[in-house]
Amino acid sequence: MPDAVHAPLQEVLDMTTETPRVPSAPDTAAAPCAAAEELRETTPEELDAVLERAAAAAPLYAALPAADRARALRTVADALDGAADRLVPVAMAEAHYPEARCRGELGRTTFQLRLFADVLEEGEYLEAMIDPADPDWGTPRPDVRRLLVPLGPVVVFGASNFPFAFSTAGGDTASALAAGCPVVVKAHPGHPELARLTAELVVAALSDAGAPEGVFALVSGFEAGKRAVTHPLTRAVGFTGSIPGGRALYDLAVSRPEPIPFYGELGSVNPVFVTRAAMSARGGQILEGYAGSATMGSGQFCTKPGVVFVPEGAELDALVADFEGRAAAPLLNDRVGEGFVRGLEALSAHPATEVLVRGRQIVEGVEGAEGWSPSLLRTDLDSLLEHSEDLLAECFGPAALVVSYPDERRLLEVGGVLHGQLTVTVHGEEEDPMAPALLALGASVAGRVIWNGWPTGVAVTHAMTHGGPYPATTAPLHTSVGTTAIRRFLRPVTYQSVPQPLLPPELRDGNPLAVPRRVNGGLPSE
Amino acid sequence: MPDAVHAPLQEVLDMTTETPRVPSAPDTAAAPCAAAEELRETTPEELDAVLERAAAAAPLYAALPAADRARALRTVADALDGAADRLVPVAMAEAHYPEARCRGELGRTTFQLRLFADVLEEGEYLEAMIDPADPDWGTPRPDVRRLLVPLGPVVVFGASNFPFAFSTAGGDTASALAAGCPVVVKAHPGHPELARLTAELVVAALSDAGAPEGVFALVSGFEAGKRAVTHPLTRAVGFTGSIPGGRALYDLAVSRPEPIPFYGELGSVNPVFVTRAAMSARGGQILEGYAGSATMGSGQFCTKPGVVFVPEGAELDALVADFEGRAAAPLLNDRVGEGFVRGLEALSAHPATEVLVRGRQIVEGVEGAEGWSPSLLRTDLDSLLEHSEDLLAECFGPAALVVSYPDERRLLEVGGVLHGQLTVTVHGEEEDPMAPALLALGASVAGRVIWNGWPTGVAVTHAMTHGGPYPATTAPLHTSVGTTAIRRFLRPVTYQSVPQPLLPPELRDGNPLAVPRRVNGGLPSE
Repeated sequence: MPDAVHAPLQEVLDMTTETPRVPSAPDTAAAPCAAAEELRETTPEELDAVLERAAAAAPLYAALPAADRARALRTVADALDGAADRLVPVAMAEAHYPEARCRGELGRTTFQLRLFADVLEEGEYLEAMIDPADPDWGTPRPDVRRLLVPLGPVVVFGASNFPFAFSTAGGDTASALAAGCPVVVKAHPGHPELARLTAELVVAALSDAGAPEGVFALVSGFEAGKRAVTHPLTRAVGFTGSIPGGRALYDLAVSRPEPIPFYGELGSVNPVFVTRAAMSARGGQILEGYAGSATMGSGQFCTKPGVVFVPEGAELDALVADFEGRAAAPLLNDRVGEGFVRGLEALSAHPATEVLVRGRQIVEGVEGAEGWSPSLLRTDLDSLLEHSEDLLAECFGPAALVVSYPDERRLLEVGGVLHGQLTVTVHGEEEDPMAPALLALGASVAGRVIWNGWPTGVAVTHAMTHGGPYPATTAPLHTSVGTTAIRRFLRPVTYQSVPQPLLPPELRDGNPLAVPRRVNGGLPSE
Repeated sequence: MPDAVHAPLQEVLDMTTETPRVPSAPDTAAAPCAAAEELRETTPEELDAVLERAAAAAPLYAALPAADRARALRTVADALDGAADRLVPVAMAEAHYPEARCRGELGRTTFQLRLFADVLEEGEYLEAMIDPADPDWGTPRPDVRRLLVPLGPVVVFGASNFPFAFSTAGGDTASALAAGCPVVVKAHPGHPELARLTAELVVAALSDAGAPEGVFALVSGFEAGKRAVTHPLTRAVGFTGSIPGGRALYDLAVSRPEPIPFYGELGSVNPVFVTRAAMSARGGQILEGYAGSATMGSGQFCTKPGVVFVPEGAELDALVADFEGRAAAPLLNDRVGEGFVRGLEALSAHPATEVLVRGRQIVEGVEGAEGWSPSLLRTDLDSLLEHSEDLLAECFGPAALVVSYPDERRLLEVGGVLHGQLTVTVHGEEEDPMAPALLALGASVAGRVIWNGWPTGVAVTHAMTHGGPYPATTAPLHTSVGTTAIRRFLRPVTYQSVPQPLLPPELRDGNPLAVPRRVNGGLPSE
């Protein structure tokens, strides 16, 4: 790794996702595990040992029957649910979220673990295929049988804004463990104690369930994270965070002597298009919904709808009053706060924007943290098209931009300046002339297209896509939410002319494990 | 792009896959299209125009019903088959292959196009999923419906060694066109006239079948290739070639402001393990088969089994005689020849190897090209483990390395030094004590594991995997041969709460297009 790469990376990560100093201390007296060992930086030697244990565990864990891995995931889910009263206060203190949010997110996390257990038992995720030998096929065709196998040790970088669902035991960890890959989590410095507690529970639960030692570990520190991405034993990386931080780690992953898949979810402004017809029919209701979604969790969602397009002359007084009336709430941590202020100042000072509501900073917030009330800005379509790089930059926190458009057909020009998005939302009416084109625009740039709804609140389900072209993610073929997230950590292997007893049981004649399989390219069946 | 990247890239590509000068001229008098326009370097302006046409065609082509795209692929296949008598002589002249090989490869190419047409009609490739709204689901769950959509313009770099099946109308092109992506092929300088002729046929056939203008184009030249990989309108790249050339282009693709998927198939030595029991039972037959596979096509296959592990004391006289008796054959082109000679010299001069058969260079070969008879070298297991980077380097051409092992259990140590492979082959006996562990070793490093067979000759079928961890490929989750190759050019989009008439027909209630769909996570059915 050339030194030239090091300097900007250090700078970028210092500024964004990582904080080398101890984060704002939670009220440790209130945390039930305050007496426990503190999370300290993992040394290079420790990191190497962790990855060696993970690599040693990999074939053993991969060889566990899927039913056993399913049981392990459920044991983890039960352990986390059972420890909710210990975990939630720590999450509240470290992430500055209210209790209901933390409990809800923990529930989502354990639901997700159990859903992947179901996926393992169902078995179609293996994508087993059997093409028997066929002398009449158009090319020589011996017996070939295929299934997916785990990649090996996966390094996971959790998000600051979802201390449960996108962190230590979140979606990346759940899907990698389900796939049969050991996981090494780099603790997020925004919630170190929650990471430590969660990891302790995960390790114990996996051990109880009979998973091999080393299949899960937590590491900490900026240098340990970098070393984990570039470590020869690491086979893939999952990351949720900012564009600069994610890109820096992506660059490390793809610059390795042996590059590895890097599944990064970086940034998205999640545009919302409100057609003229929809605004006429129910503008007030739409803008009320918009304010709720854009300010939810203090705007600290990757799916925050940061930009809303409304027709010129749309009545915005109620929206302005709504934003003005919303209370300040603390941000996740000082780093997020600093990034937000930089972004908000740049947007506010831009000659093409007008500030409709100037958010206030409250110094005496909950838990002693600083807090911000939401900001609302306005521009017009021409300005947006001209200054798209400035005005469509993600501003992570409580701020939103209203873009007024003259002729709604001109909304389609936005497709030319939008980068990849997690979501695009369209508010329209029945037989709305703009609906088909706006939905098509959405599908062309985003992983999820929403009609008359809001992007915040990502359903954990089979058909969900939480992904999209860069910079929404670094891997547009994949999703980090939903059952197909498991695929990120599996690769295909084909067995050619291998005798029955030497085949994996999932591929043997008679289908002893009753796994859904495609035979001769047909639909999967048991 | 920093200049620092440019210099080594230029050098690397000059030395490997690309030749900036005109390649050894075929006997143009024999080629039926000698009078046609010559392939010349594409200018930057022309390249931009090609990609702009491709991007303009992308939404139109993506919107074509799958049945129409299937018809287009079949029309292309028919056109190529119909022009076999024009194409084959050009391929023979440019690639220095015998007629049967060229005809066989063309047949494989058109078979592949038709197989993807079948895939389109079957419809499961879309991975349609429907999760109806469910208030009792563990997380909020609106109606979400998912399918795969094409990525957009794909740039394809064909291989020198498969002028049909991995080139202009080869597997990458067929799977990208099937996916609904426009394709821009960078002509391989080793077969420029065949590339031009093939492209002419493809363009005409696609036009006949009603595909939009711009959906396929051929470009030429080193600079045009680089520009195509870094062009903002390019959404993915398919590449088959050498490790240095592929890595240089991969580095460009992942260094873009918006990185894109790069599906590179680079290099593999495809080890063959012969157990002690197998060698005792039928050593002569195995080594005869080995010689055939290793020297097929003058060893110019990505699946050439370059290294074979045999027990110490195995009888090698017949193998040596076999190699000695094989005729010289021309290599693909001068660049391949130069690379082969460098590799062979390094292997031969290595203190850990012994030359069993020293290949002869024949200056007066077929079609005036230079040719080589096959070389055979030997080393022992300890030397291989000690010098694995030197001895396991791919030597593309007619050369093979025999590795003698003392205790067959020590073969498992090879797993520790093998990089990612396309294939691993095991020759064993029934109830062979080594078989399970060697097959597991194979699955841990390779995309295909072969029992008592040979890796050359990749069946074009559903369950095939032609891929593997780096450097076999740059994208271990994927295959470039077989029907799942289509996935490389598709990404998921989820539609949330979108009303029936605005949904893609594949996702509407009642399933008007009778596409296999997973509902509530169940198995796909129509």
